[in-house]
Amino acid sequence: MEKRELLYEGKAKKLYATEDPDILWVEYMNQATAGNGAKKEQIAGKGQLNNTITSLIFKLLRKKGIASHFVKRLSNTDQLVRKMSMFPLEIVMRNVAAGSFAKRYGIKEGTELSTPVLEFFYKSDPLNDPFINNDDILSLQLANWEQLEIISAKAREINQALRSMFTAIDVKLVDFKIEMGTTSDGMILLADEITPDTCRLWDTRNAGVANEKSEGVSIEHLDKDIFRRDLGSIIPAYEEILDRLTTLDESQSQSDIAED
Amino acid sequence: MEKRELLYEGKAKKLYATEDPDILWVEYMNQATAGNGAKKEQIAGKGQLNNTITSLIFKLLRKKGIASHFVKRLSNTDQLVRKMSMFPLEIVMRNVAAGSFAKRYGIKEGTELSTPVLEFFYKSDPLNDPFINNDDILSLQLANWEQLEIISAKAREINQALRSMFTAIDVKLVDFKIEMGTTSDGMILLADEITPDTCRLWDTRNAGVANEKSEGVSIEHLDKDIFRRDLGSIIPAYEEILDRLTTLDESQSQSDIAED
Repeated sequence: MEKRELLYEGKAKKLYATEDPDILWVEYMNQATAGNGAKKEQIAGKGQLNNTITSLIFKLLRKKGIASHFVKRLSNTDQLVRKMSMFPLEIVMRNVAAGSFAKRYGIKEGTELSTPVLEFFYKSDPLNDPFINNDDILSLQLANWEQLEIISAKAREINQALRSMFTAIDVKLVDFKIEMGTTSDGMILLADEITPDTCRLWDTRNAGVANEKSEGVSIEHLDKDIFRRDLGSIIPAYEEILDRLTTLDESQSQSDIAED
Repeated sequence: MEKRELLYEGKAKKLYATEDPDILWVEYMNQATAGNGAKKEQIAGKGQLNNTITSLIFKLLRKKGIASHFVKRLSNTDQLVRKMSMFPLEIVMRNVAAGSFAKRYGIKEGTELSTPVLEFFYKSDPLNDPFINNDDILSLQLANWEQLEIISAKAREINQALRSMFTAIDVKLVDFKIEMGTTSDGMILLADEITPDTCRLWDTRNAGVANEKSEGVSIEHLDKDIFRRDLGSIIPAYEEILDRLTTLDESQSQSDIAED
């Protein structure tokens, strides 16, 4: 596969065309941003870690029957994905109150939610990605009713699959952001990335270890909140997530062989 | 009925107990506020107008089969209502982009929405009444799933009824805010008020007349935006709404008699 012209440069990834009109070449960059780009930094090793982590997660999700745009990993920082027409939506699932949710409703960070929560945000840099509800999405024609039903069901299913994956490696999946799009033949698929950039992941393995202590809550963040909140380097945390996921993948592959 | 102790003082109304534990005495005040109380003013005649207008609207809605907490008007500024356990929700229906919706999504004020939009806001002064979606409402246990279904259906039905009512008096119902609660026997009812304080009402009768012209849109506001946006006195506008509703009510009452 050949890397051709640059189609799009996002905050953390570049998308290139290939000779196949249905396949894009994705390059993960080292850039980290927060606050809609207000904070920006180059962090050596981040692109490689995120490319490897998201490739592994998409592979593990596929084993659970959840398809995505992911085709294959090409190198440390590069992967191939199916070309999608993206919904301009950030699709957020929450299991524990944190971040903007905790702030918006005055709920203490770390509070377990009685039921998982799905939220949408309208992807628009000039508007600062505003919170949006289903009626608004339909009225603005960002998705139609049937698409919204499918997107919502998939988001909840992906949350269940990811929760069980992260629980198996002693990580609490607090919340995460995904994106979806439609393929050229109209199927709605999970796309973009699933990495510590796009999830809140709290360690449950090492009791007492914490990189943040506030309002009586001690949290060992293994995600981009380390960067957002200036809690140190993200690299050891991202490496820890990759190590644990790799171990999980190997143990699953061995049990697959044993079953054969 | 006897007016007893003050139970609650809101921004525009006072609620008093009566000798009947199921009935409250509401006094409409002249106070006008905007921006969550940031702007505040006494406007002579406003309480009387709103009490009369909301009494008339609740009566007209009842004729259309939509029940509310309204019992009866007692005097210029006072009415009796059923005591309700209120949902801490502002229930907003929108037919045309305006206000916070237009701003949030970068849509020009006055744009007709392809379909009516229902939005909820969590009533909380310290949190500044944040926008909230259905999943969040369920998770925060502000209403249960069945209640939310009933609230949503009633809001859409009320929008249809009010649109037809206002269209009949040459007023465009841009959007409005209502509240609902449950009675002591568990019925969900429309409550609070429906007045030019809680609706955006644009005149369509007098072509060319406008109290606001901006970005190529000319609007004759007959609602509290006159106060919010410093466009003059609200009193003539509120009187105009009351006059037209009174005419509508009289013509309907005459046709009721004719049918008898």
